[in-house]
Parts: sequence; structure tokens; C-alpha cells
Amino acid sequence: MGNEMEIICVGNELLIGKTLNTNAQWLAKRATASGFIVKRITVVEDDVLEIASIIREALQRKPKFIITTGGLGPTFDDKTLEGIAKALNQKLEVNEKALEIVKKKYEAYAKAGKIEKIELTPARVKMARIPENAKPLPNPVGTAPGVILETGDTLIVALPGVPSEMEAIFEDSVMPLLREKAGGVTFYETSIYVNSIMESSLAPLIDKAMHDNPHVYIKSHPKGEEKEPHIEIHFSTTAKNSKMAKDRIGKALIQLSELVKKEGGKIVLM
Amino acid sequence: MGNEMEIICVGNELLIGKTLNTNAQWLAKRATASGFIVKRITVVEDDVLEIASIIREALQRKPKFIITTGGLGPTFDDKTLEGIAKALNQKLEVNEKALEIVKKKYEAYAKAGKIEKIELTPARVKMARIPENAKPLPNPVGTAPGVILETGDTLIVALPGVPSEMEAIFEDSVMPLLREKAGGVTFYETSIYVNSIMESSLAPLIDKAMHDNPHVYIKSHPKGEEKEPHIEIHFSTTAKNSKMAKDRIGKALIQLSELVKKEGGKIVLM
Repeated sequence: MGNEMEIICVGNELLIGKTLNTNAQWLAKRATASGFIVKRITVVEDDVLEIASIIREALQRKPKFIITTGGLGPTFDDKTLEGIAKALNQKLEVNEKALEIVKKKYEAYAKAGKIEKIELTPARVKMARIPENAKPLPNPVGTAPGVILETGDTLIVALPGVPSEMEAIFEDSVMPLLREKAGGVTFYETSIYVNSIMESSLAPLIDKAMHDNPHVYIKSHPKGEEKEPHIEIHFSTTAKNSKMAKDRIGKALIQLSELVKKEGGKIVLM
Repeated sequence: MGNEMEIICVGNELLIGKTLNTNAQWLAKRATASGFIVKRITVVEDDVLEIASIIREALQRKPKFIITTGGLGPTFDDKTLEGIAKALNQKLEVNEKALEIVKKKYEAYAKAGKIEKIELTPARVKMARIPENAKPLPNPVGTAPGVILETGDTLIVALPGVPSEMEAIFEDSVMPLLREKAGGVTFYETSIYVNSIMESSLAPLIDKAMHDNPHVYIKSHPKGEEKEPHIEIHFSTTAKNSKMAKDRIGKALIQLSELVKKEGGKIVLM
């Protein structure tokens, strides 16, 4: 369908295992729900050359969207925009709209007594230095604005790494765009849970159901087995509308349930 | 130091946001603790060509280790070994040792009454079909063995996606190997927490401390600000031994603490 997306998460804290990458899961879920197919998620260090390489590699695969998280803040190792600019041979420039956003934030911080004076230090101006063809996206929760820019057929969106800020900018500025670009496509998923049959015995039954239901993706997830096997079977599809999606899943679910029962498996939850 | 590693997680469930990628964090933490530097984490779908591409791309960067998770089970969409074999132009072959491991598992399952007869169905034999130059790694918890193979200067290790199985094989068979290959290098990290100073005001202080302590990586993580800013400052280093690592971190921590206090920040926890 061509509704492809890649997610790139920038941050050493993810690569040393200090931070669990909840941003990637949150974005993947929201993007999938809006009809997009997330093809890759890549985690990369706070390094301009590494970020630029990954952006270039992703652009070669021509996804409709690349969404990055992290590296937009005021510190030296916030390098995402420099990496994106380098990948696109663009300059970083102080964007007037972005500077206005940042300035208003510090005015509000000064009013609230969090800082003594509204001084636009280099670290603060840095958050308004964005690639020359980019536009800022307002950050309703924090300081650093998000950024969006178009290159070829791809939209690159850069979001902060702090989850509350990332989510707020996404919901306000990115989700409406995804819905528009997805062309009204719907994702639908459901699961059944099966006892008393091992995954290796389920495998040929799933193969058959997938073969007979080519638009439905079926995947088994073993959920541990204390006394007997307990397996989740997850069904998902992306379709033109909700009715078509549910009809497809329903048909596959009924067929697989019958096959499982015939083999002695017990459907414990639907 | 050349102790580089890449982690590749295979599974559509990660790309649709159904599953949180705790495996990547767990592996990254363990690898970092053993002296390795995780350069990239990539999540990719259950697709042979995609898996093969990512393995090839990672091999070009010549890491010492590539660790994959997921896609080793008995079902049709468990495709990791097929992807690795394709990337290396190797065949998949039934490995006698791997088959022995799988067979013994099913004998035990039959004894425990989980299956009726010990039949080596195609789905079960599949778990013993590994790249021709690979060796199986025993799975103390589940059925599918892990796999290890050497290509050029890189060791590729394939682990299952079920966390308990992944962790058990890693601890038994991979961790000793990492320790051996890391050459006795140690990772050390610690954090201090700072109130009453905004991240943008901290930024130049961190820059100074990083400049004066070139082996120490310092990164600020804003932790929300209800009444006043609250920021974690994380220090980490990789050094030849624990004393050197702690000395380095100590020096950077003391210097930055003094700078922060001079700017009116409060160290709330050390």
C-alpha cells in the first residue's frame, strides 16, 4: 500500500540499556492504528555521522514518513537536527518561528520564577536552529519544538525524547497528517488464547489458516507453560475500512479455532 | 576499543507496538556491563529478505558481535535463521546436535504428558535446521536452541524472542564469551540529581565538564518539573579496570557538582 514508516530513536541511554524504549512502542502503536506500516525501528547513538548515515539509509528505502525521537534539547549531545541537516546537505539556521516558540517558553519560565532573567543563551538558541527547509512544530509540554521537513516523497518528523513532549507534539501535529496521508486505511487486531497444544503442533494449522486468508497475518506467542502450553494467537490486518478488516479477521479466527479444537487444543479466551 | 556490538530484534509484534522491546534493553545492559559498546539496535519484520539485508548491513560495519532475538521457533514466520543463511550465502541444514537437543525436549514433554507421541514433525525439525557453519546453543528453558556462527571477524548469535529463553541462553552460553572477548574492560555509571536549574542552563556546565574529562560521557535527562526543574545527570565510562573507571567518574562528578552549585543548582541526591 506504500504507507511505510521508519522510526529512528537517538540516544546513548537506549544503547547502554539505561532507558527502556517506550517511545518506539508508543509511536509504532499509534502509527499502525492510523494505517501505517512501520518497517524498521533503529536505535542510534548521539553522534552526528551515525545519525546522518541512518537517515540516508532510511531515505533510500523511500518511506512516506521517518519519525525520529530524542536529541532536540539544549545540550551539546543533542545532535539529531545536525545529523538530519548533514544527511540532506542542508545548513542549520535559526528559524524565526522556532525562536519565537523558544523565547515565549522562557518568558513563561521567568514569570513562574524558574529562571531569573530571560536570556537567550547559545544553549537556548540552539533549540531554534533547525535545517533550512524545516518548520517547527509547537511543543505544548516542554521547551524544544519538534521539526518537520519534506525531502523527495518522504516527510521527516523530529520529536523530543521526553515521552510527554514526544506524545503531545505527535498528537497535536503529526497524527492529523498521518490520517490524511494514510488514505482512510484501517488496522484491526485481536487475539485468542489456546491451551493444551504445543506451538509446534499449532504451526501447521496457522500455516493453513494464513494460506486460506492471505490478507490476515497470524502469529503465535508462547506465554509460558506451567502445567500445560498456553499460547496467544494474534490476528491482524490492514484494510480499506473497518467492516472489511473485521470480516477478514472473523473468517480466519473461526477457521483456525475449528482446526485447533480438532487437534485437541482448548480455546480459553476469545 | 573495537568492542562493538549490534542488536537485531526480529518480530512484527515489535513493529506494530503490540510488544514492548524489553529484550533489547536487557541485552544492551548486559553487553554494556561486560565491556561492549552497543552501536545500533534494529527492529525488523519477520521477512527473510529484510532480515538478510539488515545482517549484511551490520556485517559491513564489522562489529565483534551481532546478537539477534526472535524468529527461531517452529512456525512459518520464524525466519531469522533463513535470513542469516541468505545473508551469508549458506544453506540451512538439519544439524545433528541441534536435532538431538530438540528431540530430547519432546521426549521430556511426552513424559510430562504435554504431547501424546514423540513425533518429529516438520515444524519440530525446523528448529534444528540451522546455517551450515553454525552451532546450536542449548536452551535450558524452552525448545528452540540458540545458534552461534563466525563470519569474518564477527560472531553472530541468534537467540529466541521469549525473554526467559533468551536470557537463559545468553547467561549460559554468551556472557562467558563476551567477557573473554571484551579483554577485561569495565563499564561504570552513576547519576546525580539536580534541582533549581534548567537544562539549558546546565548545558554549558556539562560541556565544560565533558571537555575537561574526555573519557567520561555525561548526559542530562530532564525528569519533569512540577514546581522547579528536576534533572538527572548521568555519568558513564568504559575503562581498563574498575579503579580507573571510578576515579574518572569521581573527578568529573566533583567538578560538575561544583559548577552546578555555583550556578544556583541544588544537588538533591548523589
